[in-house]
Amino acid sequence: MNAPTPAHHLTIAPRATPPELVAALQQRFGAQCSLAQAVRDQHGRDESVFVSVPPPAAVVFAESTQDVADAIALASQYETPVIAFGVGSSLEGHLLAVQGGISIDVSRMNNVLSVNPEDLTVTVQPGVTRKQLNEEIKSTGLFFPIDPGADASIGGMCATRASGTNAVRYGTMRENVLALEVVTAQGQTIRTGTRAKKSSAGYDLTRLMVGSEGTLGIITEVTLRIYPLPEAISAAICSFPSIADAVHTVIETIQLGVPIARVELIDANTVRMVNQYAKLGLREQPMLLMEFHGSPAGVKEQAETVQELASSHGGQSFEWATTPEERTRLWTARHNAYFAAIQSKPGCRAISTDTCVPISRLADCLLDSISEADATGIPYFLVGHVGDGNFHFGYLIDPDNAQEFETAETLNHKLVQRALSLGGTCTGEHGVGLHKMGFLRDEAGEGAIDMMRTIKRALDPKNILNPGKIFAL
Amino acid sequence: MNAPTPAHHLTIAPRATPPELVAALQQRFGAQCSLAQAVRDQHGRDESVFVSVPPPAAVVFAESTQDVADAIALASQYETPVIAFGVGSSLEGHLLAVQGGISIDVSRMNNVLSVNPEDLTVTVQPGVTRKQLNEEIKSTGLFFPIDPGADASIGGMCATRASGTNAVRYGTMRENVLALEVVTAQGQTIRTGTRAKKSSAGYDLTRLMVGSEGTLGIITEVTLRIYPLPEAISAAICSFPSIADAVHTVIETIQLGVPIARVELIDANTVRMVNQYAKLGLREQPMLLMEFHGSPAGVKEQAETVQELASSHGGQSFEWATTPEERTRLWTARHNAYFAAIQSKPGCRAISTDTCVPISRLADCLLDSISEADATGIPYFLVGHVGDGNFHFGYLIDPDNAQEFETAETLNHKLVQRALSLGGTCTGEHGVGLHKMGFLRDEAGEGAIDMMRTIKRALDPKNILNPGKIFAL
Repeated sequence: MNAPTPAHHLTIAPRATPPELVAALQQRFGAQCSLAQAVRDQHGRDESVFVSVPPPAAVVFAESTQDVADAIALASQYETPVIAFGVGSSLEGHLLAVQGGISIDVSRMNNVLSVNPEDLTVTVQPGVTRKQLNEEIKSTGLFFPIDPGADASIGGMCATRASGTNAVRYGTMRENVLALEVVTAQGQTIRTGTRAKKSSAGYDLTRLMVGSEGTLGIITEVTLRIYPLPEAISAAICSFPSIADAVHTVIETIQLGVPIARVELIDANTVRMVNQYAKLGLREQPMLLMEFHGSPAGVKEQAETVQELASSHGGQSFEWATTPEERTRLWTARHNAYFAAIQSKPGCRAISTDTCVPISRLADCLLDSISEADATGIPYFLVGHVGDGNFHFGYLIDPDNAQEFETAETLNHKLVQRALSLGGTCTGEHGVGLHKMGFLRDEAGEGAIDMMRTIKRALDPKNILNPGKIFAL
Repeated sequence: MNAPTPAHHLTIAPRATPPELVAALQQRFGAQCSLAQAVRDQHGRDESVFVSVPPPAAVVFAESTQDVADAIALASQYETPVIAFGVGSSLEGHLLAVQGGISIDVSRMNNVLSVNPEDLTVTVQPGVTRKQLNEEIKSTGLFFPIDPGADASIGGMCATRASGTNAVRYGTMRENVLALEVVTAQGQTIRTGTRAKKSSAGYDLTRLMVGSEGTLGIITEVTLRIYPLPEAISAAICSFPSIADAVHTVIETIQLGVPIARVELIDANTVRMVNQYAKLGLREQPMLLMEFHGSPAGVKEQAETVQELASSHGGQSFEWATTPEERTRLWTARHNAYFAAIQSKPGCRAISTDTCVPISRLADCLLDSISEADATGIPYFLVGHVGDGNFHFGYLIDPDNAQEFETAETLNHKLVQRALSLGGTCTGEHGVGLHKMGFLRDEAGEGAIDMMRTIKRALDPKNILNPGKIFAL
């Protein structure tokens, strides 16, 4: 087992960006190409805890697929890295220019290109954010369910194979991307997939691109599945005597095949932080937040089944909500968890874990990791998309305190090894980026990494597409 | 647009299989390696209409992953093709040794390795068939829903990205394979994926392998999602005045988000053939066969909704079934369609199409293709997994009549071009194999094919894994 690369041990080896490339970009893109320090700085970081590395040498604000293709073609000519940028909400250092190069910002490519309500599909540019998309299709009675928390760009969500609270019912980006337009490392534009719901037509390039974190191509168009807004939605919160009780309720819910739309765990720690932050007066016990989608009768049936399961595990203080306003209130605790935690320790940052295990191992994995964290005394919050076996510890550290950093990293490391030994994965939804390169090696093994490496070398022989991420070349 | 390669124009360029390789296989595998003509012949064909090509030079009956790895390593040493064989139910020439080489039969690797009912996963060897799997897990109250018709091997179903009647509710092999063990072209064994339900851990090698038709690796272990047997199942058949009425009922069902488990179309032609074959006395009109899975109340609700939609489109003669025996009777028409059709024209073979279109275009695509087929006078049957927009014409041809062959190929060609122009795919579930290589070029474009080719060359530089399939190298 290899230790992950701690952020402060990160190898930063920027290749020099040739001034000729910058000049060529300025000539081709004019005002769409910025060299301003503030703009470059903004594009050289994300939401991760990584120490800052020098920012990209230039930022190209692409407005079309042709812009992306031209920028990549120029970068290829000068063998210089290119990093796609959506809204900067990555948690794993995906956007850092660790080998230098330029940033291609696709946020201006933010048009919903076509909505096909009768086929339940939509085609968008990569800079469209998920909230924008849902706003724009609201009148059709349809919605795009994937919700990773942040108002991420659809392109970024593809690149990291994002998921979130609704995935237990609607799947992840893996299941919900039908087709892509992608610019390759050679600056060539290709299309993968069609609007057909299924296909056996050759290699699944769509799913090869989804989750490739900008290392195999830059996504310039995305066709997604969308869903009818449920006729009825019902939400509930419920407190449990222990994490184990809450988790066993979830396990039984999933095993019974209840099509629950959301089921989130918040530990007692986090409830306490949220109570303090937002004066919610919630019972300071582990809590499940649930949501049911379907017909009125179907939702009622699902809710009754889960309520029965919860009761048999000591669940109490059930609170139900059916109107949007009541639902929003119930979900306040979940939505505020991160901010409440950060506020609980002034000046701190959160190091977030992202393991995902087979659901039968969830209780074991959680309880052991909680004991481990409690033993160190480091403060943390714990939330989870427990219906999928995915959860996040957020260890709250003082970024200037190397000791705390090491403690958090050690806990994360132990948690990942535990998850892997239980048949799980080091990242349920954040991606590998920089932080999890060591973990990925442990998880996939050298043989599978070699296969990834071979594909990367073949498709991007100059190693210009977001180099230094996922695995070392 | 390029014409597809008709079977009788197939380029057959067997590389000579070195006698040294055959000797080495015999030494390593003893009685597990067969050179018998009958065995070789059986492994040199599948269910496709392709003219026969010389069979593989030897058949290795692998009994373990190590056997597969050793056979591939030897084949690699002698730069000789290897073709994996499950049960031989491919419809697209996947198994034909068009460049010579050896067959690796995995049918003896037929153990269910582990069942994890509490995680809804199962891990099997590739030679396990889908019916065997469902038999072996019956006592757990769980089932594996993917049903391509034939009792195919799970390995083969992975390789072709199979689906079938239940895909509208449960997805295809793309959605239901969690992890694989694969032997690479170098004879190395790797693992892709984990038992976690979702992951963002690097390139999606699992889905790259699923649908790669044995050209990137040979699958030696498969972890699948399984599902709780529905509490209630209800089936129905319903006749419609026209194909358009039946299809519009389906379109509206899907658009409303009704989680229908199966919805199959049979045209009047086929009903007539089935009536003659099995004396069913069905109304000789287009017909939908449907199945609903869920709680008793949920199933009732779904059925009522669909019945209402059907009635508004002239649906009549609704017949319902809830017991397994009654359901089997109702599904007789669907299950007998192929045999009834073949019997309707003695000595004929069926050339099957496999297009899949966005559901809103289904009626247009079907009706135009029916007119076209009717105009030629060629007999055909028509069945479809219409909830997914996927359907199959089976043109009934005399295999010795070149004219009929050409007519069927021309109809197929026109249908594929129509489907592509409507945003669809040339193959919903059969795969590309030999028959659809031209169609894939039309569908994916040279850029995407180039990417597939680059991946193939990188992972299999000696081109030994099922060469000559999917695309020309």
